[in-house]
Amino acid sequence: MTVSEYRRDPVTGRWVVVATESPRPSDFQRESVRQVADPHCPLCEGREAQTPPELWVDRSAGGPNGPGWRTRVVPNQAPMVRVETALDRLGEGLFDKIAGVGAHEVVVESPRHEDTLASLDDDGIARVLWAVRERAQDLRRDVRFRYFVMFKNHGAAAGAALSHSHTQLLALPVVPREAQAELDGARAHYAAKERCLFCDILRQEEEDGRRVIARTPEMLALAPFASRSPFETWILPRHHAAWFEDSSLDQCRALAQILGDVLRRIDRALEQPAYSLVIHSAPVAEGHHFYHWHVEILPRVTRAGSLEWTTGFHLNPTTPEDAAQVLRQLS
Amino acid sequence: MTVSEYRRDPVTGRWVVVATESPRPSDFQRESVRQVADPHCPLCEGREAQTPPELWVDRSAGGPNGPGWRTRVVPNQAPMVRVETALDRLGEGLFDKIAGVGAHEVVVESPRHEDTLASLDDDGIARVLWAVRERAQDLRRDVRFRYFVMFKNHGAAAGAALSHSHTQLLALPVVPREAQAELDGARAHYAAKERCLFCDILRQEEEDGRRVIARTPEMLALAPFASRSPFETWILPRHHAAWFEDSSLDQCRALAQILGDVLRRIDRALEQPAYSLVIHSAPVAEGHHFYHWHVEILPRVTRAGSLEWTTGFHLNPTTPEDAAQVLRQLS
Repeated sequence: MTVSEYRRDPVTGRWVVVATESPRPSDFQRESVRQVADPHCPLCEGREAQTPPELWVDRSAGGPNGPGWRTRVVPNQAPMVRVETALDRLGEGLFDKIAGVGAHEVVVESPRHEDTLASLDDDGIARVLWAVRERAQDLRRDVRFRYFVMFKNHGAAAGAALSHSHTQLLALPVVPREAQAELDGARAHYAAKERCLFCDILRQEEEDGRRVIARTPEMLALAPFASRSPFETWILPRHHAAWFEDSSLDQCRALAQILGDVLRRIDRALEQPAYSLVIHSAPVAEGHHFYHWHVEILPRVTRAGSLEWTTGFHLNPTTPEDAAQVLRQLS
Repeated sequence: MTVSEYRRDPVTGRWVVVATESPRPSDFQRESVRQVADPHCPLCEGREAQTPPELWVDRSAGGPNGPGWRTRVVPNQAPMVRVETALDRLGEGLFDKIAGVGAHEVVVESPRHEDTLASLDDDGIARVLWAVRERAQDLRRDVRFRYFVMFKNHGAAAGAALSHSHTQLLALPVVPREAQAELDGARAHYAAKERCLFCDILRQEEEDGRRVIARTPEMLALAPFASRSPFETWILPRHHAAWFEDSSLDQCRALAQILGDVLRRIDRALEQPAYSLVIHSAPVAEGHHFYHWHVEILPRVTRAGSLEWTTGFHLNPTTPEDAAQVLRQLS
């Protein structure tokens, strides 16, 4: 018989039902993501003419928009939001709307189609993180933008439209609700205790140990107490800072090291699953020093049903304690 | 070029990017849901021994737990939460948890595997709604339960584990975050204006007309202003009431009539798509009279990526005005 419990995420207040007799990783329905060469892929080296001109590049040879690059950032070909739009805010009775201003950029993680973020070496992953950081630094000079969504969908099951490994950056004039819920939770904790909620979580989890996946001098990887889905993983920097985009190159390298390690463990435990990865950072404006940037990784091993989609209520068949144990042992 | 705008849902505050040059329904990736006979289906008539004993039944012939029924409610075979659990609330440092108390029930909508909710006649749909109402009425006598999730996943793409058409009822000791966000929005509107937010939406949408899908003397079906996904549909009762489970048989019949009509229009427009349906009702406790129960239907015609899943930020490639026009014309 499955024994379960409700767990409340201390940041967002989200309730999750977690089963305390967990299935094994082999019990999940999932498809492994395979990088199959694609002769028409517009993101591969040598097809630079098929994308808009690059916005940022790390290049070892060649000239702009030609071969010889290692990491490359280009505008999304079919963006849902555009930089060339005025920031018009309009009311319509009960309804509020804003013209579709924004930026939507794609970080191409490698010139080679076979690579994944997990298969890159630490330098390669650090270049991707640095590219995101550099683009966010540039975009935050635009006063219309209030929030950056920095994310990666790996595999079609996680919503990736292109199979070539890439990370995306959206600059928005609004703060999404999930981000707002995190900010509200962190602000309330800081107001009550004058301590950062994420620093407190980091300390409690490291002492407890049951949900720790990996640790380095700079970072801690853990399975969050109220994991929404099996093998959810957070990476928290030990050094308190609200904005990822303020990270130094050394900090990007420290994140790259543990991120590569964690992604390779997840690949081994779940046989190259689809996953989503989001870098959570504070809104652009001042006054968010109580927040603590971090990375959240959600492997897609179960199909989210209407329950999660429409009620925000999650059923997770694997405890984070079991997931952390599996991932810890795959060092 | 796609023109888009940000729209804010007046209830939850959720921001959605809606494209204002919409693709046609035929542009979507989707799979039609087909009801293929299954000789091992435990929910078909004649296999009553394969489910736990029925909790509620509408029967035209035969005895308990045998053939001759039209609508039947049974406990979920593998529930994530259980009635036979004490309501223990525990803290663990920063973390809160509750033992997995709850009820998880399945309304079998028809004895025949070929049927879908949309293919039933109005009486058949009304029986399903009445069964949900009757079970919720029974379960709310249990003081441990604070919220009912009444929902239906149609098709594997919407997370349905069983192909036999069924609706589910979860009784929970907590209020899920999405529900709480709706309650907060409706409460704030009532506090500011002493009017129900949903009654105001109903009035504004009916006057405006662009997002109206269907209307009856008792109900209005509309495409919500900040639709999260293509062809999202809400059905609002004109009569203000906070709790669906207080509905009379006549009200269930009125809902059945417009729900069947709307589901058949969606089936024609999108060729039998997978969908999720949730009946939104107030929490069990007193003091929620400002709320207005309603039904939300979300066809699954795009694959939700990490963006929606982890940030609560939605990209919708179809305007609700276009969706409503398509559905209105399919009378």
